[in-house]
Amino acid sequence: VNNPSAHHPADAADRLSRLPVEEAAQVLRELPPPEAAAILSEVEAGQRTELAAALTPSGLAEAVEVMPHDRAADMLADLPDQERQQVLQALPAASREQLTRLLQYPPDTAGGIMSDRFLTLSADQTVDAALEQLRQLAEGLEAQSISYLYVTDAQERLVGVVPLRELVFSRHDRRLREIMNPDVKRVSVKDDQEKIAHLFEHYHYMALPVVDSEERLVGIVLANEVIGIVQHEATEDMQLMVGLSGEERVLTPWKTSLARRLPWLCINLATAFVAGAVVGIFESTIAAWSALAIFLPVIAGQGGNAGMQTLTVIIRDLALGELSPGDGWRALNKELLLGLLNGIAIGLVVAIVGYIWKGSGLLGLVVGLAMLLNMLAAALSGVLVPYGLRALRIDPAMASSILVTTVTDVAGFLFFLGLAALAMN
Amino acid sequence: VNNPSAHHPADAADRLSRLPVEEAAQVLRELPPPEAAAILSEVEAGQRTELAAALTPSGLAEAVEVMPHDRAADMLADLPDQERQQVLQALPAASREQLTRLLQYPPDTAGGIMSDRFLTLSADQTVDAALEQLRQLAEGLEAQSISYLYVTDAQERLVGVVPLRELVFSRHDRRLREIMNPDVKRVSVKDDQEKIAHLFEHYHYMALPVVDSEERLVGIVLANEVIGIVQHEATEDMQLMVGLSGEERVLTPWKTSLARRLPWLCINLATAFVAGAVVGIFESTIAAWSALAIFLPVIAGQGGNAGMQTLTVIIRDLALGELSPGDGWRALNKELLLGLLNGIAIGLVVAIVGYIWKGSGLLGLVVGLAMLLNMLAAALSGVLVPYGLRALRIDPAMASSILVTTVTDVAGFLFFLGLAALAMN
Repeated sequence: VNNPSAHHPADAADRLSRLPVEEAAQVLRELPPPEAAAILSEVEAGQRTELAAALTPSGLAEAVEVMPHDRAADMLADLPDQERQQVLQALPAASREQLTRLLQYPPDTAGGIMSDRFLTLSADQTVDAALEQLRQLAEGLEAQSISYLYVTDAQERLVGVVPLRELVFSRHDRRLREIMNPDVKRVSVKDDQEKIAHLFEHYHYMALPVVDSEERLVGIVLANEVIGIVQHEATEDMQLMVGLSGEERVLTPWKTSLARRLPWLCINLATAFVAGAVVGIFESTIAAWSALAIFLPVIAGQGGNAGMQTLTVIIRDLALGELSPGDGWRALNKELLLGLLNGIAIGLVVAIVGYIWKGSGLLGLVVGLAMLLNMLAAALSGVLVPYGLRALRIDPAMASSILVTTVTDVAGFLFFLGLAALAMN
Repeated sequence: VNNPSAHHPADAADRLSRLPVEEAAQVLRELPPPEAAAILSEVEAGQRTELAAALTPSGLAEAVEVMPHDRAADMLADLPDQERQQVLQALPAASREQLTRLLQYPPDTAGGIMSDRFLTLSADQTVDAALEQLRQLAEGLEAQSISYLYVTDAQERLVGVVPLRELVFSRHDRRLREIMNPDVKRVSVKDDQEKIAHLFEHYHYMALPVVDSEERLVGIVLANEVIGIVQHEATEDMQLMVGLSGEERVLTPWKTSLARRLPWLCINLATAFVAGAVVGIFESTIAAWSALAIFLPVIAGQGGNAGMQTLTVIIRDLALGELSPGDGWRALNKELLLGLLNGIAIGLVVAIVGYIWKGSGLLGLVVGLAMLLNMLAAALSGVLVPYGLRALRIDPAMASSILVTTVTDVAGFLFFLGLAALAMN
């Protein structure tokens, strides 16, 4: 624990993240800046900002200077304005300019995740000249950033791509324009990272160039970085569904967790009281027919689980970009059909159990019918909640399980106790 | 829709997946085998098998011949024994042998996901000879599969790695053993794909070589393929939690969805009846004090949501490989602390609302205390359920939300109605 720099920076970062922030910052301060930077790059985004705040601006500037710029920018973006300016001022002019440019892009866009370490070649260069340029400049770049070489024109606009292999095995006097592929897939600097992840998954890209609004090449995104993005997006979706921040980890300090979870628990509490109020409307019915209370958790629990099944399928397909415009209706029809069929099956079982348990055919009928109706409500809300949130330009996963279970609780109790009240009259 | 081959095979596969199986198979049959194979490679695994079953063994053999072997193997693995043998027999001997070897590895291991299209060089080769070999053999390989070149000894054992860049810029008379990096990170052919995804994410690899038990190089895994694996694993976890198959999509045929969901709904129903039975024990209490029924959904809903929060954090951290052995205890302590603090806050609110709503201080006390205790039960079960499942060698996500909400329902009702019964005496 005392020497987290012994192995790979990612492992050192892991060990660092298990220390209290002050102690971790102390370890970083004692390391040579390149090592500290390498470790800082590997720390989870949230914790990286905390650590950055514990370092001095000049120490931070030394680290930023050797970090991948996309991560340095994420870290700087989260610092208070004044501290960020101090760090930027402490940087050499070239780095300051590059980072200032990256800082204008939101962290979850192509601009926020792209690397600005790439090589560009010119279409008029010969293969020989290009190889010579590579030999001189490639030292500072990772091997993977030169598997694909991008060709730009005089205005820095992206006009072609040449795999390194192609370059190596072409006649040395040919011009790049003759061997490059002019049909380069690209993304815009403003594109959302979820869309980019989808492109990588769908088309199996190893790298994608990023262009600005004038089609100028401004960065590249590599497949190995997309893996982390995909994990991050999936974590976020799973967490948002149940009222978590999207960033929480087991190692997140309890104070942070508490501050993030409690508001959602309060919202959930409010919805639970709505369900309670529905029961309250029928308090006299329950007072007269106490066996009804036994079936409240059955109606609510079963509706909630069915709703979560539907919701999970929809949220995930939306995130994976697998749904075309017409698919929403397709999903609704399918889920309603499943709700109907599952509802008939489960409703029958519940009705029979209700009849046998309490010896009342009327109770069986009421609870079975309510179950069937609630399964339909579950299907409906499982589809409409995520699509509705999206229509409101909110993340479709946001608190969606809280909303769906509210619907299934409220609708389920209304159906069940309403039918029971009718049956009693 | 009539001509799904017009664009990228992945897009064609998307359109194909929206057609009925028979129609889709018809489209494939009419395409030239290389195109059909390219599209078949891009279809979702489940649907690929359905389509494969609709093609003739000889047609399938033609397609398999040009597909990436890892996907061909997945597809063949799911076919009935007899049909698989027919396809294998229709293949040329070399392909048959390669595929038979791949078929021995489970699809979710390194052996199941690796590509067998890679080049090996020998440590005694000169740079010049290696480049010449590349020039001749690299044609059939994707550009990315030669970014890193692997060096093997006479027994095919992996002994080093050379980035293509290094090869290109080294003196042509040097031997590979002088320029290669002998410290090659590798995975075993038996390693689980989740572990491999974690390695790629943690260390940002672009490629990892796969070796068998004798350290012989048998395949490579590339970062771009890992993206799909990561998505698949995340989908599976999200779905298993709520009682889905892990493979379900909006476009999954309703009969398949019904057959997969109904068993889990029945299991959930059984657990819901357990919760109902707990209420049943206290039926006379409720009959005498009907206001209690109003708070049943509050206790259950709030406990369920808190339990899901804890569960989601644990499941995700387990899947991301972020938890070291000691972290389980750390998680348990943190979650119990959060349960206590959230429980006090939420318990107080519930107690006050209970008191005001029903004008009974006793009711407020009972429901507030039960709420606090149920938040602790939620924390406990949110940690113990996934760890318990893992200890039983079951996927920690499997039906975990069903189990956790059962605990919070049962424990919540026991606390609440038990305390209420005590208070009434």
